[in-house]
Amino acid sequence: MIRVGIIGATGYTAFEAIRLIQGHPQAEVTAVTSRGDEGKSIVEVHPALRGSIDLPLSLADPAVLAQQCDVAFCCLPHAASAESVRSLREVGLRVIDLSADFRLREVSVYEEWYATKHPWPELLGQVAYGLPELFEDQIKGADLVANPGCYPTSAILPLAPLLQAKAIDANIIVDAKSGVSGAGRTPKLVNLYCEANESITAYAIGSHRHQPEMVDVLERFTGVQADILFTPHLTPMDRGILATIYVQGPGLTAAKVKQMWNETYADAPFVHIVDAPPATKHVSGTNHVHMGAFDAGGRVVLCCAIDNVTKGASGAAVQNMNCMFGLDQTMGL
Amino acid sequence: MIRVGIIGATGYTAFEAIRLIQGHPQAEVTAVTSRGDEGKSIVEVHPALRGSIDLPLSLADPAVLAQQCDVAFCCLPHAASAESVRSLREVGLRVIDLSADFRLREVSVYEEWYATKHPWPELLGQVAYGLPELFEDQIKGADLVANPGCYPTSAILPLAPLLQAKAIDANIIVDAKSGVSGAGRTPKLVNLYCEANESITAYAIGSHRHQPEMVDVLERFTGVQADILFTPHLTPMDRGILATIYVQGPGLTAAKVKQMWNETYADAPFVHIVDAPPATKHVSGTNHVHMGAFDAGGRVVLCCAIDNVTKGASGAAVQNMNCMFGLDQTMGL
Amino acid sequence: MIRVGIIGATGYTAFEAIRLIQGHPQAEVTAVTSRGDEGKSIVEVHPALRGSIDLPLSLADPAVLAQQCDVAFCCLPHAASAESVRSLREVGLRVIDLSADFRLREVSVYEEWYATKHPWPELLGQVAYGLPELFEDQIKGADLVANPGCYPTSAILPLAPLLQAKAIDANIIVDAKSGVSGAGRTPKLVNLYCEANESITAYAIGSHRHQPEMVDVLERFTGVQADILFTPHLTPMDRGILATIYVQGPGLTAAKVKQMWNETYADAPFVHIVDAPPATKHVSGTNHVHMGAFDAGGRVVLCCAIDNVTKGASGAAVQNMNCMFGLDQTMGL
Amino acid sequence: MIRVGIIGATGYTAFEAIRLIQGHPQAEVTAVTSRGDEGKSIVEVHPALRGSIDLPLSLADPAVLAQQCDVAFCCLPHAASAESVRSLREVGLRVIDLSADFRLREVSVYEEWYATKHPWPELLGQVAYGLPELFEDQIKGADLVANPGCYPTSAILPLAPLLQAKAIDANIIVDAKSGVSGAGRTPKLVNLYCEANESITAYAIGSHRHQPEMVDVLERFTGVQADILFTPHLTPMDRGILATIYVQGPGLTAAKVKQMWNETYADAPFVHIVDAPPATKHVSGTNHVHMGAFDAGGRVVLCCAIDNVTKGASGAAVQNMNCMFGLDQTMGL
Repeated sequence: MIRVGIIGATGYTAFEAIRLIQGHPQAEVTAVTSRGDEGKSIVEVHPALRGSIDLPLSLADPAVLAQQCDVAFCCLPHAASAESVRSLREVGLRVIDLSADFRLREVSVYEEWYATKHPWPELLGQVAYGLPELFEDQIKGADLVANPGCYPTSAILPLAPLLQAKAIDANIIVDAKSGVSGAGRTPKLVNLYCEANESITAYAIGSHRHQPEMVDVLERFTGVQADILFTPHLTPMDRGILATIYVQGPGLTAAKVKQMWNETYADAPFVHIVDAPPATKHVSGTNHVHMGAFDAGGRVVLCCAIDNVTKGASGAAVQNMNCMFGLDQTMGL
Repeated sequence: MIRVGIIGATGYTAFEAIRLIQGHPQAEVTAVTSRGDEGKSIVEVHPALRGSIDLPLSLADPAVLAQQCDVAFCCLPHAASAESVRSLREVGLRVIDLSADFRLREVSVYEEWYATKHPWPELLGQVAYGLPELFEDQIKGADLVANPGCYPTSAILPLAPLLQAKAIDANIIVDAKSGVSGAGRTPKLVNLYCEANESITAYAIGSHRHQPEMVDVLERFTGVQADILFTPHLTPMDRGILATIYVQGPGLTAAKVKQMWNETYADAPFVHIVDAPPATKHVSGTNHVHMGAFDAGGRVVLCCAIDNVTKGASGAAVQNMNCMFGLDQTMGL
Repeated sequence: MIRVGIIGATGYTAFEAIRLIQGHPQAEVTAVTSRGDEGKSIVEVHPALRGSIDLPLSLADPAVLAQQCDVAFCCLPHAASAESVRSLREVGLRVIDLSADFRLREVSVYEEWYATKHPWPELLGQVAYGLPELFEDQIKGADLVANPGCYPTSAILPLAPLLQAKAIDANIIVDAKSGVSGAGRTPKLVNLYCEANESITAYAIGSHRHQPEMVDVLERFTGVQADILFTPHLTPMDRGILATIYVQGPGLTAAKVKQMWNETYADAPFVHIVDAPPATKHVSGTNHVHMGAFDAGGRVVLCCAIDNVTKGASGAAVQNMNCMFGLDQTMGL
Repeated sequence: MIRVGIIGATGYTAFEAIRLIQGHPQAEVTAVTSRGDEGKSIVEVHPALRGSIDLPLSLADPAVLAQQCDVAFCCLPHAASAESVRSLREVGLRVIDLSADFRLREVSVYEEWYATKHPWPELLGQVAYGLPELFEDQIKGADLVANPGCYPTSAILPLAPLLQAKAIDANIIVDAKSGVSGAGRTPKLVNLYCEANESITAYAIGSHRHQPEMVDVLERFTGVQADILFTPHLTPMDRGILATIYVQGPGLTAAKVKQMWNETYADAPFVHIVDAPPATKHVSGTNHVHMGAFDAGGRVVLCCAIDNVTKGASGAAVQNMNCMFGLDQTMGL
C-alpha cells in the first residue's frame, strides 16, 4: 500500500483526494494536516468522509510525515505550498504539489502573475508537469510533480495535438465555465449561495493566472507559443469545467481535429472523443475528459468537459501518483 | 387602459408577459388563449399568477379578441404564430409577435433555417424589429412588431454601435450562456431537472437559428454584414443570458467601446454600461441590459447580461407596446 | 410621496425593500445608510438595483434622516436595531423595524433567547406586530411596527384561525424549509454555494429564536398558549419558505380548516387558499401567501408557502407602511 | 466475478447500479436491456458511463440472460417488474427487484395502493426485504430480494430500533425531502428544471405508496403496527433524502435514542450516528446513512440522511448482492 499524506486537508481538493485514495486498492491516507483545525477529526471538517477514514488533523511535521507516508499531496495555497514542498522534499518524501508553484518554468513569469517571491525558484523548469496524457515519461521517475491547474487541463488537452501539428493559428480563444468549487472553501461574498446561484458571470478577463500556465505548457509540449485569450466564468454548479475553444487554420475541419486527437490520445485511458457536445455532468466525479469538435462557418469549435475537482485537481493527482509508483494510470479512478 | 390579449398563454414567455402587464399602470390582460388547456383557469396553469389575474383560457377567436383587446401578444411557436398573426391583423388588432416569424427580412433565409414554408411571406422585410434601442422610430407607428430573439438581443445591443462605427472586424465570436427557461415549457429529456442541473453544455454549435437573426438585424442597422460564429450554452439556472463576445479592430480598446456605447445608448433607459463583469443575477426579472468591455491582450471582450424571459422576450414586448401606444418606454418595467 | 430611509442597506432584506419601494407609486427611497460601506454607491453594493436608484450610502445620522425621510426601515441585526430605532424615534421618525427587537412582549423571553440586554425594554409589549392580516388596527395608527420574522409569518397565518376557534390541540409541529437568503449576506462556511447546494439539512432543532415568537404572537391573537415544536431546514434555493404543519383536533378535517381560513382571511388580499400543495416558486418575489390543508389519516397537514424575503420580510414591511400611511395594503406589491 | 444483468437500463437507478458495479472488484455488468432503446449503446443513453462500460442495449430475453448473468437487477416500473422477475426466476436467475412489487406482504394492500393486479401474488410474504441492517439472515440465502423504497429506507432505519424497544408511541410523523431524481427520468412537467428549481413543495400528502411499505416492514421487524403520517417533499437537488421524524415516548431522550441505535447498528457498516444535524450532501453518491437525534421540548426529532439513488436504491442493491453472494457487505461501496 502507498501511504499518502494530505498537507492542508480542509479544502475541496483535499476532500476529493482523500475520497479517491480511500477507494484506491493500493493506496491509503495515513496523515492529514491543517494549520487551523489541528486536533479536530478529518470527519468533523469533511462529514462526507465519514465511514471511509478516521484520522485527526495534525500540524505538518516533515520528520513525522516522512515516517508516516510514502508520498505527500500538497493542497496549500501558492507560495505556502512551495515552502512546504521544500521541507517535505528535504526529508525525502515524494510530493505531488496541487498548487501553482511549480507549474511554470520561469521565475519571472511566476513572480509577475503571482505577485510574490518564489520560495524555491531554482527548481522551476525542472519539475514534471502532471499531465500524463502528454508528459508521462517525465512523471514516471519523478519525486516531485506539479499538478496542473483545472482550466489549463481543459484547454491544453484539446489544443496540444493541434498546435503540435501546426494545424491551427496561434491566435486562440478559450471561453471556460467553471463550477463554484474552483473558488475554494474560504468564505467570500462572491461564493455565497445567494450570490452565485441563478447567475453566470465572467471574471478576471484577460488576467487569470491560468493563462500563462496554458501558454507555457503548450510551448513546452509543442514548441509553439500560443496567443491565448482566456475568459473564465463562474457557473452555478458545484463542479465541472466546460472549455469552449475557438480555433482556425488552413483547411481545418472538425474531422481533422478528431483524427489528430485520436492519434495523440490513442493510449490515454481518460480521454474520450465524443460526437455530441460534451456536458460537465457526464464527467462529474470522474477523471474522464470528454472532447468534441464542431464545424462552424469555416472555423472549428472545440468543447472539453472535465470535473474541475477530479481531473482538474485531485483525480489528476492520483493519476500522477499511479504513474510515479508504476501502477496502471487508471487504478482507483 | 390598454387591453392586452395573450395568444398561447401557457408557456414561460406568456407567464412573464402577464406578470408584467398586470403590474403595468396603464395596461391589463383581458384575454388569454390556449389550444390545449382551454377551459382551465390561467391560475391553474400558472399558479404564480394567483392574486394578479383571474381569467379562463379560451380558444383564440379573432373576432372575439378584436372586441376584447387593443393589442395581442402572440406567444405561439414559429409558423403557427404567423398564421395567428395574420388572422389577428385581419380583424384589425395590433400585434406584437414573440415568435421568430417576422424577424428576418428574406423568405429564403427563413425557410432555410426554419425548414418550413412561411405562412405570410409578403410581409417579411416590412415589419419593425422590436428593439427600441435601435429601431424606435419604426416601432412607434407600427401595427405589427417582431419581438427580438433572446440571444440576438444580447449580441446586437453591444455589437451594433461598434459595427456601425466600423470599429471592429466583421469576424466576431459570440459565446452565449442561457438559463433553461429559454428551452420552453414542453417536457423534454434534456430539460429535466436531473439532466440540466449541475451541468453546462454547448448546443447547436454553428447551427442555431438566432445566428442569421443577429446577422440580418445588424446589417439592417449598420449596413455591415457580420460573420458571426455563435455558440449557445445551456446553463443550470432558470433565467438569464450572458453573451461573451470577442471582437478586434485597429486600435480598439475597451475605453473606446464604452465611448461608442455611451453615444448610441445615451437615451436608452434600460442599457447600463458597467465596470465590473456583468452577472445575469443583476438583471434577473428586469428589462435592464448590463454591458461591459474589457481589454485582453490586444483584443476586447464584451459581456452583455440580460434576463432572457424579460428583456429577451416579454419585457421587450411590453417596452414595444409602450412605444406603439405612445407611452414612456419604461412604464411598468 | 412617502420618503423612505433604509437603515443598514447592504443585506438582502434591504435590497428587497429598495426594489419594492422604487416600484411603489407613492413611495421612494431617499436615504440609504451603512456602517461599513459609507461613501459607496448603493448600486455598487447591489448591482441589481442599477436603473432603479442612485444614492450614496451614508452613516446613519438621525437628525439628517429626520429631514430626508418620513419613515425608516430598520434592517440592522437585533440589539443594534433597537438602539437605532430609539434614536430614530427620538427625532420623530416613524419606524418599521425588520429585526426581532420589538416582536416579543416580555423582556425576559427576549433576553433568554437573544442572550443580550434589550436596549429599550420599556417598549416591549406596546409595539404593533406587523402582520396586517391579524393586527391591522394596531398597525394603522402606529409610529413603530415590529416586522414579523419569516418563519413566524409562515406558521402564524395558517395556525391563528384554528387556535382561535379552539379547533386544534395546542401540541403542534412546524417543519419549515427556507431558502439560503434567510441566513443573511455575511460570508460564512455553511452559506457557501458548495456547502448549501445539492443539500438539505435541519438546523437549530428545537432551539430557533423564531419559536418563541410564534408562541407569543399566537397567544396575543388567540389567547391560547401553543406548544410548538419547530424545525427549520436550510434548502438549496435563494428564496422561499414552505412550512409543513401537523395539527390534530376532534373532528378536524381539511375542509373545516379551509372554512376557518376563509372566514378569517376573507378580506386579506395576499392570502390564497389553494387546492394543490403550495410551492415556494408560486410565491417567489411576491407578497402572496399560498395555504393548503390536506387530510391524512385522521390528522390534517397544513402547508404554507411564502417568499421569505418578500412576505417574510420586506414585502410585509411595505404592506405595513401602506397601512401606517392609510394606503391600500397592496399598493406597490 | 459476479456477472450482472441490468433489466431496464435507461433510468437513473440503472445508471447508478452500473456505475457502482463497474467499480466493484468482484462484479461486472454483462448485459443491459431496454424495451425502447434496444440497439443503442448504453453510453449513448448514459454518456456519464463512457470509459467504464461499453455494451449495446438489447431486448430482455430470459434464456439469453441466463447464459450471460449470475444475477439480474430489475429496474422496471412496478407490475412490469414482477412479470420480468417471474420470467427471470423461471430460468434460474437470482434477482434483485428494485421495483415495489415484492416489498409488501399482502396482495390486498399492494392492489389497493398500486391499483393493479399483482402478476405473481403467491410470492408476496415470502420475499426477503433488502435492508441488510435488519434482515441480513433472510437476504443471505435468497434468490429473490425486494430492494427497499428510498423513503422507507430513510424512515425504517431510525424507527425500527425504537419501535422494537417499545420506546416510542406508534403515532409517528415522517416529513421527508427528496431530490428530483426520485421522480424518475420520464419527461414530465413537474420535473422540468424550470418547474423544480428554486422551489420546494409537498406532494402525495397522506397518500404516497411508500407509507404502507414503512408500516408493513416495521411491523415485520418489530411486531408493532405504527401509525405513520408521511409527507414527501420535492426538493431542488439531484439526489438525497432527508427524513425529519417526530417521535415521543415516556422518558424518551435523544441520548436514549442514540443508545438504542448504537446497539442495533453496532455491526452495520453504513449506519453512522452523528451529533450535528445530518445533511444530504454528506452522503451524496455513497451508501452511507447519517442519523441524528435531537431533544426538542419534551419530544425527540430524528433526522436521517441518505442518497436516494445509492442507499435508497442501487447502492442497497449492490449491498444486497454482496450479502446474497457471501461477500463483505461494503465491497465496491
